[in-house]
Amino acid sequence: MRILVANANTTEAITELCAASARAAASPGTEIIPATPRFGPAVIATRAENVIAGHALLTLLAGHAGAVDAVLLAVSHDTALEAARQLMPCPVVGMTEAACLTACLAGGRFGLATFGGTETYRERIAQHGLSGRLAGLIGVDATPQDAVRDPAGVALKLQDAIASLAGQGADSVVLGGAALAGMAPRLQPEAPVPLLDGIACGVRLLEMMVALGLPKPRLGSFAAPRGRVVGGVEAPLAALLRGG
Amino acid sequence: MRILVANANTTEAITELCAASARAAASPGTEIIPATPRFGPAVIATRAENVIAGHALLTLLAGHAGAVDAVLLAVSHDTALEAARQLMPCPVVGMTEAACLTACLAGGRFGLATFGGTETYRERIAQHGLSGRLAGLIGVDATPQDAVRDPAGVALKLQDAIASLAGQGADSVVLGGAALAGMAPRLQPEAPVPLLDGIACGVRLLEMMVALGLPKPRLGSFAAPRGRVVGGVEAPLAALLRGG
Amino acid sequence: MRILVANANTTEAITELCAASARAAASPGTEIIPATPRFGPAVIATRAENVIAGHALLTLLAGHAGAVDAVLLAVSHDTALEAARQLMPCPVVGMTEAACLTACLAGGRFGLATFGGTETYRERIAQHGLSGRLAGLIGVDATPQDAVRDPAGVALKLQDAIASLAGQGADSVVLGGAALAGMAPRLQPEAPVPLLDGIACGVRLLEMMVALGLPKPRLGSFAAPRGRVVGGVEAPLAALLRGG
Amino acid sequence: MRILVANANTTEAITELCAASARAAASPGTEIIPATPRFGPAVIATRAENVIAGHALLTLLAGHAGAVDAVLLAVSHDTALEAARQLMPCPVVGMTEAACLTACLAGGRFGLATFGGTETYRERIAQHGLSGRLAGLIGVDATPQDAVRDPAGVALKLQDAIASLAGQGADSVVLGGAALAGMAPRLQPEAPVPLLDGIACGVRLLEMMVALGLPKPRLGSFAAPRGRVVGGVEAPLAALLRGG
Amino acid sequence: MRILVANANTTEAITELCAASARAAASPGTEIIPATPRFGPAVIATRAENVIAGHALLTLLAGHAGAVDAVLLAVSHDTALEAARQLMPCPVVGMTEAACLTACLAGGRFGLATFGGTETYRERIAQHGLSGRLAGLIGVDATPQDAVRDPAGVALKLQDAIASLAGQGADSVVLGGAALAGMAPRLQPEAPVPLLDGIACGVRLLEMMVALGLPKPRLGSFAAPRGRVVGGVEAPLAALLRGG
Amino acid sequence: MRILVANANTTEAITELCAASARAAASPGTEIIPATPRFGPAVIATRAENVIAGHALLTLLAGHAGAVDAVLLAVSHDTALEAARQLMPCPVVGMTEAACLTACLAGGRFGLATFGGTETYRERIAQHGLSGRLAGLIGVDATPQDAVRDPAGVALKLQDAIASLAGQGADSVVLGGAALAGMAPRLQPEAPVPLLDGIACGVRLLEMMVALGLPKPRLGSFAAPRGRVVGGVEAPLAALLRGG
Repeated sequence: MRILVANANTTEAITELCAASARAAASPGTEIIPATPRFGPAVIATRAENVIAGHALLTLLAGHAGAVDAVLLAVSHDTALEAARQLMPCPVVGMTEAACLTACLAGGRFGLATFGGTETYRERIAQHGLSGRLAGLIGVDATPQDAVRDPAGVALKLQDAIASLAGQGADSVVLGGAALAGMAPRLQPEAPVPLLDGIACGVRLLEMMVALGLPKPRLGSFAAPRGRVVGGVEAPLAALLRGG
Repeated sequence: MRILVANANTTEAITELCAASARAAASPGTEIIPATPRFGPAVIATRAENVIAGHALLTLLAGHAGAVDAVLLAVSHDTALEAARQLMPCPVVGMTEAACLTACLAGGRFGLATFGGTETYRERIAQHGLSGRLAGLIGVDATPQDAVRDPAGVALKLQDAIASLAGQGADSVVLGGAALAGMAPRLQPEAPVPLLDGIACGVRLLEMMVALGLPKPRLGSFAAPRGRVVGGVEAPLAALLRGG
Repeated sequence: MRILVANANTTEAITELCAASARAAASPGTEIIPATPRFGPAVIATRAENVIAGHALLTLLAGHAGAVDAVLLAVSHDTALEAARQLMPCPVVGMTEAACLTACLAGGRFGLATFGGTETYRERIAQHGLSGRLAGLIGVDATPQDAVRDPAGVALKLQDAIASLAGQGADSVVLGGAALAGMAPRLQPEAPVPLLDGIACGVRLLEMMVALGLPKPRLGSFAAPRGRVVGGVEAPLAALLRGG
Repeated sequence: MRILVANANTTEAITELCAASARAAASPGTEIIPATPRFGPAVIATRAENVIAGHALLTLLAGHAGAVDAVLLAVSHDTALEAARQLMPCPVVGMTEAACLTACLAGGRFGLATFGGTETYRERIAQHGLSGRLAGLIGVDATPQDAVRDPAGVALKLQDAIASLAGQGADSVVLGGAALAGMAPRLQPEAPVPLLDGIACGVRLLEMMVALGLPKPRLGSFAAPRGRVVGGVEAPLAALLRGG
Repeated sequence: MRILVANANTTEAITELCAASARAAASPGTEIIPATPRFGPAVIATRAENVIAGHALLTLLAGHAGAVDAVLLAVSHDTALEAARQLMPCPVVGMTEAACLTACLAGGRFGLATFGGTETYRERIAQHGLSGRLAGLIGVDATPQDAVRDPAGVALKLQDAIASLAGQGADSVVLGGAALAGMAPRLQPEAPVPLLDGIACGVRLLEMMVALGLPKPRLGSFAAPRGRVVGGVEAPLAALLRGG
Repeated sequence: MRILVANANTTEAITELCAASARAAASPGTEIIPATPRFGPAVIATRAENVIAGHALLTLLAGHAGAVDAVLLAVSHDTALEAARQLMPCPVVGMTEAACLTACLAGGRFGLATFGGTETYRERIAQHGLSGRLAGLIGVDATPQDAVRDPAGVALKLQDAIASLAGQGADSVVLGGAALAGMAPRLQPEAPVPLLDGIACGVRLLEMMVALGLPKPRLGSFAAPRGRVVGGVEAPLAALLRGG
């Protein structure tokens, strides 16, 4: 099975970080194909960058349509997830979506800890219809750069956040954002509740989806595009939208 | 006051239709600047097209930043609305958002009638936090082409939908989608409840927002971008994301 | 255009404060007509006073029916709003409703700061169907009298509340209550997010509603009263309820 | 124990109907005191009438403060309920509130059948926080006059509505509105689920509240008014608002 | 009237505590029948114990079917409430359900204070559809044993929790859990809002339900079981499930 | 990997049906261990049976604790799911939970079709926090016996239900109930949207959970029981509750 791990920003180092997490989580026999968009934000930190990244991501995915069995969106806000799910002929899962749904299997309510702001996570979780399972969100005052410079200090801040979320009723904590990919194993021993890595959850959920072999819907807003005419996009994306 | 009426698809005829509605609704002294993206879908009918259109739309808007006082998104799903609101130095309103908020001033619950599917409208209204004010959605079985070919027949279907929504408890009905722009005046005489045209509502709400002169937030997820590095986008958009 | 700015308590000074805010916000050509009820509470501070003020307010409005183009309820809890909307032949908007809907155009979630208790605001915002857009409510420990006696001290408390609400995720803050009318311009320079004055928002929203010229619904619970028989109310109110 | 059964309209026949239902439901030793306002609507059928009736009702209640042990609001929309609860020194319950809360003890979800429109019931049940327990609302196309003229025909329509609500998942059905007071016993034998009469439920819930002897809250928005100055209201109401 | 006060754990002392509270709350003429299961947890502190207790409780109730007029579940999580309501030929009320519904009659929102964790209370209140009426939950750091050893210290902690909940907007506070049965009278004098004892509320609500004499639904998921075949359960329970 | 497929009723044929579905869905190397309770309902059709089955199911599971890697509850209402999740040292998933969460990965909203009543499914989905993703529920008028007697006729009814749910906006349809296990492959070719079999989804989700190797929470209401004393239960269950 070939799973595309698609970053939505152009920073290859993050793609590699996510691909490493994905490989660590994958079953034997699952091949991880890392992919990085050719245009768009270096890092997504604003709503506008997220929109641009959506186009970049769909372009990236279209170039792999038919050549992969599943797609994991390795981007914290599940950028363009529903569009990718409609567009692609294979299962598509977002990393935050994956972690949140897995959290639903691990207890009652879950928390989310991330670097920086939390409002867009709150919105995304609401769009997923999971607000009722959310115990709280904490934006740790640190950057991915801090995590490299002072890993122990940042780990401490994250542990505080995790403990605080558990105190608010979280039975598990999602580590939000690609920058936190791979940190779960290091933080888990001290944490009072299970920690969820979106990449690991996503890879395994995709293996499940591929195994189930569900057909695409033929009706409704997730049916494959047919006959759509879109200008100024790369050929593989245009072809997918044309359908047939 | 200069209001940009920005279509998100590349069909100039729809831009013109919306601009005409906008001019009819605008105050004296308000200038309507129609604008059409240079790339993207001819008509947005799928989730993937909506994502691509988001990029096209932000590109289009950035080219007008500083030259207009307000932006109306003349696209049914309020494509890239939150991103545009964060990005632009002036107020931005979406046409469906505008109609739904105006409906809140016209009664208790509102309905929405449109051509085709309704699920993505349902989602958008939920994202706006207005599900509790929504009495129902009806997707009339007709296309924009039908509306040109058989206006009387389509009007009849729309009147049925409006009456049905009123019967479900709607005190007003939003006509959803740019293809319905300008139809409210023709349908209103027979309709039992007020009909809301997103373009007309949007123009007037933007005049209000400009008059209020609210500053942009300096904190949070709607604060203007600063120092963002984004590759492969047109210069004005890159400049706005860089900020300063 | 003539906009009635109707206080719901009998304190003329508050009527004047609101009228001044309204005039400052109005378009050229909009005339502000202040009005104060002839009976009811000096200041509304309890649920019972709010009910009595509802009757007083409808009585006041009925006396102006046909002579004004729009009505702004200059009272913090949007007292009798839905009833006034049904009763009057022109658009009616409440000041808190106006600020909250405008806040929806200025960002994602909003906060509300006021003097005193916040539970009745929470309820009113829920009735407006906007709980999902509400980031938090803060009741500052101060009275309108304090604001006169110690404006700097009270401003400081309000700035703290505004900053705290922004920290809770509010992209804008509604200043709740007629006693805060006109304070937004003074507080705005220090505030990290836009501040919303219900009077200013309301005047501009009413100008929009008048311009749109929506008919009243002919069906449902906002259709104009007809043939209602009500004893012991003043003649203009009785006449409106009789209809015809 | 003395329970005031307070109508909110001026039609004595409805007061008597409700009082009869109340007496049929009351425990031995409970005295039912019927009361009718001296001003306000003959029948409440619009939002504006409901507001006026709120004032009339508080005036009526204040005249009985101290002389009764509990108050049942014999009016379908629980008019001025929260205000009355704050104002009065004894328990206050609304007839629709009473029926809906009792329905919660009789099964999972409940329906509501009434004469005429249902939107204001839907709003009231939402204000009570009970939307999640509501399976559906049906407004039977009949008037109280029809019920007198053609009781069998109206009963048939009501039975259809009750069966339909049961089919929608209602485990019980609230008969909404004072005009339906006393009809439950006649309809019950044919009905597949229990029928709830707000007057009967209210009387029994008030007996419970009196027996529990809960103090009034000293904090918050239901604490008794103190020092309120209200002009143009009758002396007993002014006195209650002054407090002390 | 005979009300079964059914504990769901096997600790007779708690049964006795609840029975004493029930007797103190009951009307003259109401007989309280305490009952303790013969198997199951000594104290319910985990989800698994709650499930086992459900079976034990239904077994216990079935043994009294036909011999009592009503059943009060004297167990904090309203264990097996809906099942008992379907099964038994008489009204059944849970103590937390009873307190929460009564709280709805005493103000707007309510709080809940208990010993230990609160997540399962949050879930139970959500299942009752009352989340919108819940202002907050506080789990006091104390055990029933502490309450015996150091009643004054525990009372102080509870008073702090009650005051804090009132500050969060609670107009009343439910004392959650059988271990707190009977503490309301001692804590009430110092408390700023009314305190609700589930046993007292439950007894009175059951007296109401018996007086109303509602039939069981003949349709839906609360209709009495018929023809069910269940092995390994005691004869009275098997008989009730067989029905007829 | 050993997955226990635990029926909650005593009908071995259903256990076998589910085990066959589970085996068809499992990865190579996954062993399916079917298990049937020794007491409880033959088929769960009432709330009371569901409670008894909860005890039977926990008893059954405890007998396998330590000997299996994961547990699938092969029972439509996810009987005792949260309790089992707390109790067992390995992942536990319910079949309806599994299908609903998988549906979230297959589109926007989902529907549910089953034999018989739907209210308890509606409640269970609400408890899972997924009401916002639910497009509708249809209870087909057929029994498991009908499905054996007249498979073509029942299939037709199910296809109608599936089409109707798709028309209501469902992007996929959950086949609810163990009696429908294994029917998805037969119905899928005609269905316009993917069909979800809870057993297949559950097996694959459990394989994911085992692979992720999440620790149990050490805090909160899903932490393993310790020191609980429970009488009258079988030794393995008592041992798990004692912990250590």
